[in-house]
Amino acid sequence: MPDSIFNVLQDAIREGNPIALATIIEGDGVGRKMVLDPTGEVHGTLGNTSLDRVVLRDMSGELEAGRTGTRHYGRNGEAREEELTIFIESFAPPPQMLIFGAVDFTAALVRVAKVLGYHVTVCDARAVFATTKRFPLADAVEAQWPDKLLETVGSSLGVRDAVCVLTHDNKFDVPAITAALDTNVGYIGVMGSRKTHDNRSNRLREAGVSEEDFKRIMSPIGSDIGARTPEETAISICAEIIALRTGREANSLKQGSGPIHKPND
Amino acid sequence: MPDSIFNVLQDAIREGNPIALATIIEGDGVGRKMVLDPTGEVHGTLGNTSLDRVVLRDMSGELEAGRTGTRHYGRNGEAREEELTIFIESFAPPPQMLIFGAVDFTAALVRVAKVLGYHVTVCDARAVFATTKRFPLADAVEAQWPDKLLETVGSSLGVRDAVCVLTHDNKFDVPAITAALDTNVGYIGVMGSRKTHDNRSNRLREAGVSEEDFKRIMSPIGSDIGARTPEETAISICAEIIALRTGREANSLKQGSGPIHKPND
Repeated sequence: MPDSIFNVLQDAIREGNPIALATIIEGDGVGRKMVLDPTGEVHGTLGNTSLDRVVLRDMSGELEAGRTGTRHYGRNGEAREEELTIFIESFAPPPQMLIFGAVDFTAALVRVAKVLGYHVTVCDARAVFATTKRFPLADAVEAQWPDKLLETVGSSLGVRDAVCVLTHDNKFDVPAITAALDTNVGYIGVMGSRKTHDNRSNRLREAGVSEEDFKRIMSPIGSDIGARTPEETAISICAEIIALRTGREANSLKQGSGPIHKPND
Repeated sequence: MPDSIFNVLQDAIREGNPIALATIIEGDGVGRKMVLDPTGEVHGTLGNTSLDRVVLRDMSGELEAGRTGTRHYGRNGEAREEELTIFIESFAPPPQMLIFGAVDFTAALVRVAKVLGYHVTVCDARAVFATTKRFPLADAVEAQWPDKLLETVGSSLGVRDAVCVLTHDNKFDVPAITAALDTNVGYIGVMGSRKTHDNRSNRLREAGVSEEDFKRIMSPIGSDIGARTPEETAISICAEIIALRTGREANSLKQGSGPIHKPND
């Protein structure tokens, strides 16, 4: 490993900063390495700029997911070719998703979030619903009030993380949202019909949530893909999270004004 | 079970037509039933029109996924309330997804498709890649040419089903796409950069694909959410499939003209 790359890697790991390392393990240039940190700083090269560009894009995705794995490319980064095998290692914890509300939609969201590499916590104040038996794939299930949980874990949340509020009850939603706004979490999505949303917005204003804060709240949660089942809704939420992180137009329900479901659905 | 509902159900099952049945199993009106067929025809009621409307929407989603399960509602269909427990049964096979190409993206798409309830077949002519070891969650893995597989299963494909072509090689893509166009499959998505797409479009025209047929081909595949990793790409593909089925704006890459990834990605 070249000194410069080793030093960058060592410093990042020592300080607990996320960093990704790519190494060619099969094909031309075996052993070439490149590192990427979340600010976009790059050290090293895999051999040519078009290969670097493609692999850096994939590294940023893998780093975001805290994921390590093997990918295949053509010599100049062509997708779906097999000339080069590259090992991408993320030195980073997985991103976190906190789901408030142990409801019908929660189990499906846990399953899709796990595919995306999240460490998933399900939290509901109602102990009878917040059980590992109902959410076997969740990494943690907490029978607690949302604001209590966020007191404990809130400071660890950052731009890669997500809070999804599915409780649909002002008693739980309002403390969950206000506590989430006090963190640096990258995504806050809140479920509910437009009517519920308006009612909740009034409660949130009463609780001191500013107009600036409201911009951070994705409500109604999800992309406007006409999701019907819990599984489809989980896809719509994750699509919105990805689009926000990559700066794309998420076609969010938040931006629309019509009903979430078409009248004749 | 009222006679009329029993008869409708019996006829549908006897003829092998998909049909969904909802029954209140806890709360007010236990035992009330309603059936829905894929043409939208409804028999019976669960007690009031707003409850029926919400449950019918969920039934159509479950029926599409060939899925059976329990959902909770308020008395008037309020989501995320627990007054009523309703059992929704789909008398229908699961929808099918055929994925052509055993590439890096395939395993992630299999995982997300399984959450959505698809019966998933992975097909690649290269026997060394088309193995159950690489795709443990797939329902079937076929080492076969795409057009050969479609000769066998093509007639069973309908509007709920999907064909995803991830091979990115004209040798495989062109026969997969032309054979898929000969079926009634509801979704045909094809992976590739815009450059590959243009090149492939010429080959498809040479192979006799009409302008009308081109409208059915979603290429480049997926919603424009800036997906980077295979897992994010899987979400983008499934979001596009759902949006097309429900008549929403999928924000498809097909409709755009810019690069699939931002230059600075």
